[in-house]
Amino acid sequence: MTNRTAVFLITAADRKGLVAKITGFFAGLNLNILECRQYSDILEQLYYMRVAVELPPELTRAAIEAEFKKLAAELELHFSVHYSGETQNVAVMVSKTTHCLYDLLTNSEENLLGSGKVKLVIGNHPELEEAAEKFRIPFYCFPVDRSGDPEQEKQIIELLEKQKIDLVVLARYMRILSNDFINRFPARIINIHHAFLPAFMGGNPYQRAWERGVKMIGATAHYATADLDEGPIIEQDVERITHESLPEDLRNRGRDIERRVLTRAVRAHLEHRVIISGHRTIVFSK
Amino acid sequence: MTNRTAVFLITAADRKGLVAKITGFFAGLNLNILECRQYSDILEQLYYMRVAVELPPELTRAAIEAEFKKLAAELELHFSVHYSGETQNVAVMVSKTTHCLYDLLTNSEENLLGSGKVKLVIGNHPELEEAAEKFRIPFYCFPVDRSGDPEQEKQIIELLEKQKIDLVVLARYMRILSNDFINRFPARIINIHHAFLPAFMGGNPYQRAWERGVKMIGATAHYATADLDEGPIIEQDVERITHESLPEDLRNRGRDIERRVLTRAVRAHLEHRVIISGHRTIVFSK
Amino acid sequence: MTNRTAVFLITAADRKGLVAKITGFFAGLNLNILECRQYSDILEQLYYMRVAVELPPELTRAAIEAEFKKLAAELELHFSVHYSGETQNVAVMVSKTTHCLYDLLTNSEENLLGSGKVKLVIGNHPELEEAAEKFRIPFYCFPVDRSGDPEQEKQIIELLEKQKIDLVVLARYMRILSNDFINRFPARIINIHHAFLPAFMGGNPYQRAWERGVKMIGATAHYATADLDEGPIIEQDVERITHESLPEDLRNRGRDIERRVLTRAVRAHLEHRVIISGHRTIVFSK
Amino acid sequence: MTNRTAVFLITAADRKGLVAKITGFFAGLNLNILECRQYSDILEQLYYMRVAVELPPELTRAAIEAEFKKLAAELELHFSVHYSGETQNVAVMVSKTTHCLYDLLTNSEENLLGSGKVKLVIGNHPELEEAAEKFRIPFYCFPVDRSGDPEQEKQIIELLEKQKIDLVVLARYMRILSNDFINRFPARIINIHHAFLPAFMGGNPYQRAWERGVKMIGATAHYATADLDEGPIIEQDVERITHESLPEDLRNRGRDIERRVLTRAVRAHLEHRVIISGHRTIVFSK
Repeated sequence: MTNRTAVFLITAADRKGLVAKITGFFAGLNLNILECRQYSDILEQLYYMRVAVELPPELTRAAIEAEFKKLAAELELHFSVHYSGETQNVAVMVSKTTHCLYDLLTNSEENLLGSGKVKLVIGNHPELEEAAEKFRIPFYCFPVDRSGDPEQEKQIIELLEKQKIDLVVLARYMRILSNDFINRFPARIINIHHAFLPAFMGGNPYQRAWERGVKMIGATAHYATADLDEGPIIEQDVERITHESLPEDLRNRGRDIERRVLTRAVRAHLEHRVIISGHRTIVFSK
Repeated sequence: MTNRTAVFLITAADRKGLVAKITGFFAGLNLNILECRQYSDILEQLYYMRVAVELPPELTRAAIEAEFKKLAAELELHFSVHYSGETQNVAVMVSKTTHCLYDLLTNSEENLLGSGKVKLVIGNHPELEEAAEKFRIPFYCFPVDRSGDPEQEKQIIELLEKQKIDLVVLARYMRILSNDFINRFPARIINIHHAFLPAFMGGNPYQRAWERGVKMIGATAHYATADLDEGPIIEQDVERITHESLPEDLRNRGRDIERRVLTRAVRAHLEHRVIISGHRTIVFSK
Repeated sequence: MTNRTAVFLITAADRKGLVAKITGFFAGLNLNILECRQYSDILEQLYYMRVAVELPPELTRAAIEAEFKKLAAELELHFSVHYSGETQNVAVMVSKTTHCLYDLLTNSEENLLGSGKVKLVIGNHPELEEAAEKFRIPFYCFPVDRSGDPEQEKQIIELLEKQKIDLVVLARYMRILSNDFINRFPARIINIHHAFLPAFMGGNPYQRAWERGVKMIGATAHYATADLDEGPIIEQDVERITHESLPEDLRNRGRDIERRVLTRAVRAHLEHRVIISGHRTIVFSK
Repeated sequence: MTNRTAVFLITAADRKGLVAKITGFFAGLNLNILECRQYSDILEQLYYMRVAVELPPELTRAAIEAEFKKLAAELELHFSVHYSGETQNVAVMVSKTTHCLYDLLTNSEENLLGSGKVKLVIGNHPELEEAAEKFRIPFYCFPVDRSGDPEQEKQIIELLEKQKIDLVVLARYMRILSNDFINRFPARIINIHHAFLPAFMGGNPYQRAWERGVKMIGATAHYATADLDEGPIIEQDVERITHESLPEDLRNRGRDIERRVLTRAVRAHLEHRVIISGHRTIVFSK
């Protein structure tokens, strides 16, 4: 994509002529469609579209948005628009384990998180400060012994807002956030659960997986919602295990699955390839 | 899909306004788009589309095709159109192993090959006649000892044409067909190669895989072309193996891979989800 | 393996010198060990072994078993022994869907179920009689409308015992068997559940998987126990799906997963590669 | 494993009584066998064993090795022995891409490379010095413009020997090492190739994969030998791609595959789970 690309994510009630009208809009402006992905949910009668267009120098953001809003009003579209060159600020919240954090920090440095960049790390323990500092990312510690304290959560929210954070990633953050917190960032918090949801919801999934004798373990990245472990799933993956794997081996194997699942989900979100649809997600593949 | 569905597979040089014009065509006829999948190959500047529309009772095939041909001429589209309710006749060519044949016969009986049905089986050995007869499918034997004989190949072609065969599946058929034969059925012959191409082209791939010590084995389904093992790939899959797997174990494990890869490829073709693009295929997933 | 092979499956409390004593036993008899697989569960302090030995013509089954029993008494081993050339009789119980049945019937015919052979098919509906007859396997119908009737279950048990059935496979058999029935065949009934257990236990898993928006679906083969869907798992597998997959697509994709998972589990059992250990299984890979 | 564990890796010509004699050796010393893995290659008549034993405080390394050498001489065993608590020094050689290097550095820091620790990084470009310094690992630059110079290679060898390097990892090191260099570290150099070998040997595999239209891409970790891309394979993995993936997307997707394949292979080697057998490897899984 060039520096002058706009990506529209569109949701609408499905009906005849919708695609023609939307694509006709861009053709009418003589814009080049770089990529057009769509999905009609025939069970729910909903239509989803991701369209990337090349913006000519003379077309301002204000101008195209003003035009598109008219179309959106006419066709009752819900939409968001994202521009190339606009960095998205990412905050990572952690406890004591490095594996997901390191994967996000290295991918951020390698420019492999779409237009996202890790801007700060928040820990409820001091241990991972050194990891963040390696990559020259500021680390803020909000100690876990005050984690029930509404005042502390308020400070975290202030920090996130002051730093203009677009996405919060819970990278094995071992505390439950309040509903207030979660509702403050709708569809902007991604969590990793260390099991193949809906199997092994809740605590200690690797131990329970071992006890149940499953032959594969997995991990699940999902948007955080007030219902714990019930948010819309973005990405899942599994690996085959055998009877020889002890619970500790599962935990170690699981780290590799967790980090790649979380990074893939964060990347998909930051590349504007995800649309939430009720309890489900539309993820346009790359 | 209802009984009155038309699926258009379209290829065109990519350019501004193309999507809008094509979808506008269907909107202009007031047709309901059931599914619309597209892909812009920005490297080759080519555009691919699969669009499924609902046909109202009053719209004949002749009428919609006549209309679409005008659009195709204007926009220089290549296209094919396929109607629900139209059975596609499938011929399966085999030698001595049953696994791929049985998977195709059972999927055909279970109506899981799109609109395709296995209509006949051709063997260059008599062994699989009984397998075909189980499913009441006629079996024709063209013995291998005459396999170099152009007269024999001519008879096979006559049989396929007389029986109005739409797709020929080489289900571990252990003979090389002549270029004449292959060119007679362009993009209508699917072969299974028992390796993860381009690894282990040619003969005896499981033995060679064992000798090379690979940690996964695979299979590849592709359209047959004059260049052996070089045709456009439709589907591939692999399974993990270990040092404990002997060449014979690889062959047995491979059977499971071969049959599911071949059946998936045949199904994708018969569901009109494949467009060939030079050496590559566009496969719209389901 | 030759025609004269014995496979010992051994479980014991783990302790020093155990391996040396067991392998010393076979060395003392001057037997050739063809394969020796073992696993020490250091959490439960249990030891598992699968050892395959070549039997010389002069060594009778009675003789080697008498000798081994002495060792087993001394070391407090639990064991079973299985001889090459001994066919295991398999009964398949079905309702209305063919996919798992066909995979078992074709694998049985292709001699890919270890020493097992499908000997009879039991249906609670008449529909699959034709499928069984294709492969010349007797079909017995015990109609579902009498399925709560203890008398009917008694007749099924009599049939299984009279036909010397070694393994009962529930190949999408849509009825719950009584505890009496299950306890009559301990570790000799294998069931396929059409989900990745413990996710989606109980009914309608594909619909629920769609509603939950998971990104992969799976299937699980396990020994049947009185606790439904809780028996020891033998094999699991998954496939990646997308938002485009409708519940019906999941069901169709699921068929392929179900059949390969069930067949792999049945094959592992019939090749004497499975030892049950509480809620878990030891499965020695091939 | 405790701090006092010894792991024996053993290769021998297979014959009757071998297992009993080896396990009898450890039983005779009253040692506790923590883990015993074995494999009989019946095609090559070779026997492989990995046995981990607990060492009592009173048994010195010298004592057990002296004893075992007698057994090895008697039974013509090849073996190596490794002790817990013995750190293995790892050198990573890189060019310009960080992904594999970061994965090794973070796994080293997280103690997930068995008893291995990254001790130094060698680059033929200066770019990755900063990455190494983040983790406080010394970085040595041997500029690529002198890479054909035997003097330079001599300096590298001196560095590796002076630093007592046990394993050299080529983490996307884009230069060919001389045979002299490779032969100096037999079975102690691991390379990552960015394709599923033997497919796409040589240069530019992602571009060629795109051109061939494969449906999966992969990576291969193998021991380096004089024959480029022909060394014994330790680990491979693949990911499914679609027609939508451009060559650049393949390169990015490939990074994730490369890093996990290389790290898994390095981990297996450093956990003493790999035995080389001609062109193949025995990898005892965990």
